[in-house]
Amino acid sequence: MSMIGPLKLKAQLLCDHEIAMGPGKADLLEAIDSEGSISAAGRVLGMSYRRTWLLVDAMNRCWTEPLVEATAGGGQKSGARLTGAGRTVLAAYRALEDALDKAAASAPLKTLETLLRATPLEPRHGG
Amino acid sequence: MSMIGPLKLKAQLLCDHEIAMGPGKADLLEAIDSEGSISAAGRVLGMSYRRTWLLVDAMNRCWTEPLVEATAGGGQKSGARLTGAGRTVLAAYRALEDALDKAAASAPLKTLETLLRATPLEPRHGG
Repeated sequence: MSMIGPLKLKAQLLCDHEIAMGPGKADLLEAIDSEGSISAAGRVLGMSYRRTWLLVDAMNRCWTEPLVEATAGGGQKSGARLTGAGRTVLAAYRALEDALDKAAASAPLKTLETLLRATPLEPRHGG
Repeated sequence: MSMIGPLKLKAQLLCDHEIAMGPGKADLLEAIDSEGSISAAGRVLGMSYRRTWLLVDAMNRCWTEPLVEATAGGGQKSGARLTGAGRTVLAAYRALEDALDKAAASAPLKTLETLLRATPLEPRHGG
């Protein structure tokens, strides 16, 4: 999800009815890459372990290859890292976001920004 | 919201914490334009009258001018139509969506489509 001024943009890749990649999953891949562990990545992002695990599992089922793999080693220092496919998909998704952000800075957005209030008027009736 | 192959794109214009324009509101403006009435537009889109009215009210509070106005006439044939600002905002929003759709058909999306499965594998554990 990116904000370009008042514009909120969200790009999701769907695999049938599952979200294969989106803003949250891309952030999770980056956190796994920097933390070297799924649980540590979830903690950094403030997600429960269960939710973190479900996102990783969905990513690993939606692409032709898993995006995240357990690092060998055994014992208490086992962790996780991005696969080659994980790096490729993450980079392509971020590049797609960048292309969208650039396109958004186009003439129509200027028109909309000119007409948009900074804050809404009060509702005229109870909401 | 547009779908470009497996890519789902959503663009929203925010006015502080309110959504001033987005896929649903743009569809509603088009329906009001063709139906000439807020309640008829809501029916066409399968929305409750209350929800329809709240979306119109939000649009009318978020822009420098209202986007929808009641048509004069009185009696049971009163209706609604887009203002000049309503037409300008709707056209600019659709143009912005088009620009985003065009940008999305870029190299990174091709990479992602190549790697994406048509349907996900089964979850490995109970979801």
